[in-house]
Amino acid sequence: MANFDFNEYIQENIKIIDSHLNNYLENRYPQKLWESMRYTVLADGKRLRPLLVMEAARACGGNIEEVIPTACAIEMIHSYSLIHDDLPCMDDDDFRRGNPTNHKVFGEATAVLAGDALLSHAPLLILENTPETVKKENLHFVLKELFEAIGPMGLIAGQVVDIESENEDIDIAKLEYIHTHKTGKLFIFALRAGAILSEASEEQLDALTYYAKHVGYSFQIADDILDIIGTKESLGKTPGKDIKSNKKTYPVLFGINEAKEEVKRLCTLAVNKLEENNVLTPALQNIADGIWQKVNK
Amino acid sequence: MANFDFNEYIQENIKIIDSHLNNYLENRYPQKLWESMRYTVLADGKRLRPLLVMEAARACGGNIEEVIPTACAIEMIHSYSLIHDDLPCMDDDDFRRGNPTNHKVFGEATAVLAGDALLSHAPLLILENTPETVKKENLHFVLKELFEAIGPMGLIAGQVVDIESENEDIDIAKLEYIHTHKTGKLFIFALRAGAILSEASEEQLDALTYYAKHVGYSFQIADDILDIIGTKESLGKTPGKDIKSNKKTYPVLFGINEAKEEVKRLCTLAVNKLEENNVLTPALQNIADGIWQKVNK
Repeated sequence: MANFDFNEYIQENIKIIDSHLNNYLENRYPQKLWESMRYTVLADGKRLRPLLVMEAARACGGNIEEVIPTACAIEMIHSYSLIHDDLPCMDDDDFRRGNPTNHKVFGEATAVLAGDALLSHAPLLILENTPETVKKENLHFVLKELFEAIGPMGLIAGQVVDIESENEDIDIAKLEYIHTHKTGKLFIFALRAGAILSEASEEQLDALTYYAKHVGYSFQIADDILDIIGTKESLGKTPGKDIKSNKKTYPVLFGINEAKEEVKRLCTLAVNKLEENNVLTPALQNIADGIWQKVNK
Repeated sequence: MANFDFNEYIQENIKIIDSHLNNYLENRYPQKLWESMRYTVLADGKRLRPLLVMEAARACGGNIEEVIPTACAIEMIHSYSLIHDDLPCMDDDDFRRGNPTNHKVFGEATAVLAGDALLSHAPLLILENTPETVKKENLHFVLKELFEAIGPMGLIAGQVVDIESENEDIDIAKLEYIHTHKTGKLFIFALRAGAILSEASEEQLDALTYYAKHVGYSFQIADDILDIIGTKESLGKTPGKDIKSNKKTYPVLFGINEAKEEVKRLCTLAVNKLEENNVLTPALQNIADGIWQKVNK
């Protein structure tokens, strides 16, 4: 791992993802709709989820070409969820990744439809662009897991409970439910999809799922910590929203220090599990370390 | 055809569809989300799209069990599009099928999420419940056509152009674009899905596609006629919205009588095509006739 340059790795892989996203979303009619879709998807982003798909494939000895459509589809689905989350009737956010939110630029109607469009277009991408070398049954399995992860028993369930819990006292069980559904499910899917498409063994799949659960949860806690200690410039969005809206996040409930410790504990467990099962790659190590470092700057 | 009782046929088939929809949408946590999904999907509806899936299967000698998950998924996707169309930032409708619209009952945030949830849950249903007897390649082909039909080159493109064209003079080409995308694509998909899952021949598939295009367009024109000559009681929604919002529908552009003639012409062409290719069933005949009768009461 000594020679591994994480920043270079990130830049190279983001370049691959962005060039595919750009091709998949080439401007079509009606222009305003596609511009609105491109606006959010192609904004500067960490591309964490697509990176995880690709890295899970690498960890299992898979072929990157076979997972790129799925990696890009996840990024589109992530973007759709951000667009809808930011709507005035939801979190009512004006900024995202340092830019005005989608509805601020294109209006609410187009923002709702751009989200719907990304959600509908993402699985089409997977079906149209996944190479024939991928077994149909593996593709089938991946699609099933995708819709489970993002539907009313996954991401959307988490979002609904999150909204319901504003201005309400919630216990740690409900907090974990929100995290595991709103953020966790798509994280887990990203790693599992890369592994399944690469014909991973049962043990490899289990280890990557364990990593996904732990890193996903720590990522959310880190986000909540930064909402308290971060600035608008460093976050690219308005900080302090959780406290203002009385949202009982992990650091609000247990304090900043306890939350930082939890982030570290979860990331360590995740990395150890991959090591035990011989699927730890330098990038997966660095992604976990990066979450921990982010809250300890 | 002499012994065919269309009303009995409709009632029997709606019962089959509704019982499956009810099972597929059994109440889960978070309750408000599932109630909101159930509210719109299980409201009294014509179930036209699922009926078309089932009838296309019958016309091609297929097995109804093999198409029911897809038939129900289309109804859910139709419901999602209604929920989002009715939102204040879109058409801002208070009534639908005689009942208060989804956001009027559950609030805007839940309505947006219920739509998203139906859109995500529908393909999961297809993947989970379609019998193993259906070839994976046919199933994948159907899913691909589904996402094409409902995405940013299909239903959503039609919706965007429709919204953009309000308060604007539009020509007949743009009007047809809106119709073929907003309503037509899902109609066409319904009949093609039933046929593809039933291993239809190329000729059967072409004939049913032709029928779908013509009946779909006539259905939309009929809807626009009723928006002018109907009452709130007969429509279950507020009439006169198109004229009020300056929407240039077919009857607005060409007059009621011309529009009625066009409905008849399209339906006749559709039925003749099925007859020529030996895929005309009594129900498909009656569905076409029914549209014509609806505007001639």
